[in-house]
Amino acid sequence: MKQIEISRATMGRIPIYLKYLKDTDLCTENISATALAKGLGLGEVQVRKDLGAVSGAGRPKTGYNVSELINVLENFLGRNENSSVVIVGAGKLGRALLDYSGFQEYGLDIMAAFDAAVSEPEKSNLGKPIYSMDALDSFCKENNIRIGVIAVPAHSAQEICDRFIRNGIRAIWCFAPCVLSVPPEIPVQYENMALSLAYLNKKI
Amino acid sequence: MKQIEISRATMGRIPIYLKYLKDTDLCTENISATALAKGLGLGEVQVRKDLGAVSGAGRPKTGYNVSELINVLENFLGRNENSSVVIVGAGKLGRALLDYSGFQEYGLDIMAAFDAAVSEPEKSNLGKPIYSMDALDSFCKENNIRIGVIAVPAHSAQEICDRFIRNGIRAIWCFAPCVLSVPPEIPVQYENMALSLAYLNKKI
Repeated sequence: MKQIEISRATMGRIPIYLKYLKDTDLCTENISATALAKGLGLGEVQVRKDLGAVSGAGRPKTGYNVSELINVLENFLGRNENSSVVIVGAGKLGRALLDYSGFQEYGLDIMAAFDAAVSEPEKSNLGKPIYSMDALDSFCKENNIRIGVIAVPAHSAQEICDRFIRNGIRAIWCFAPCVLSVPPEIPVQYENMALSLAYLNKKI
Repeated sequence: MKQIEISRATMGRIPIYLKYLKDTDLCTENISATALAKGLGLGEVQVRKDLGAVSGAGRPKTGYNVSELINVLENFLGRNENSSVVIVGAGKLGRALLDYSGFQEYGLDIMAAFDAAVSEPEKSNLGKPIYSMDALDSFCKENNIRIGVIAVPAHSAQEICDRFIRNGIRAIWCFAPCVLSVPPEIPVQYENMALSLAYLNKKI
């Protein structure tokens, strides 16, 4: 459960550390938090805090062994335990999510999308399958889908949510502006793409 | 500045209250927090807290005057002061953001997208313009653009960011996995679409 206690901000920077460690030709076996902070233009205290939370402190003088650190960060992000996800609603948002590459960084596998407007199976730009709603139930069961994403209008969201739960889905990521009623053991994450932008706008 | 102090969670529920107040045939001039909570399946304490933070307490017995409450909530969301936004990067994410209707709820107007791969002006599915990068500078100045959205790969993000700032943009919403260097007066909101899903996955 350690991961849960790690702040969202820290979790958001882990892929940035990983990318730097993997893509930069460091020409060294070890790297210090100082060097990492410098290389990324982040505060040294922040980097120490982030890495400390995920992988413990670096060794005095030598810092972190690069390959060990990469391994720890990847395990933290769950790259080594794939989690299967499906999306219902293959509008522009659903398709953007379906082809969004960033999920892989967190070991999340968006396997397919389903849409009421689709009759014959289609492929997304990146070749992910988009099926008709008829295919949803069997697909969820056969692929042991863990998370269901709701990218349909609010008026259909509860129906999709109930269907996800009947098919053994264990968590819901909801982009519809609504409140879902779910059993207490099913976590729901509501997403509002406009909210961050509205927040930013109020900061100006 | 009151808005800033309001939690993201509260801010996220305001459009839900608004939608309910406007779309439901309440057949009444006033509504109590209790009735609103019941209608939305939310906790009464939460509703009182949310509405209290934005518009003050309802009147004892009568509750809130519906049209006044709608007005207060809309003003809070800034529906009456449009904020102009442009996106650089018209890939699937950029186009999804360009056509995403949810921004209007917060008084945000995504006016256009710009992309290096576009030579002749195009239109999005909902008819929003997509221009070549050559058009960016003049468009930002002529339309007094307030916020710039970065939906390009990490390696081009800083260049776009600098160009936004040269063109008078006052805040940056960044979807690229990178750290931007900006003057202290320019707020940057980093977005990581994978993060919420990864968080949800760790809650299961």
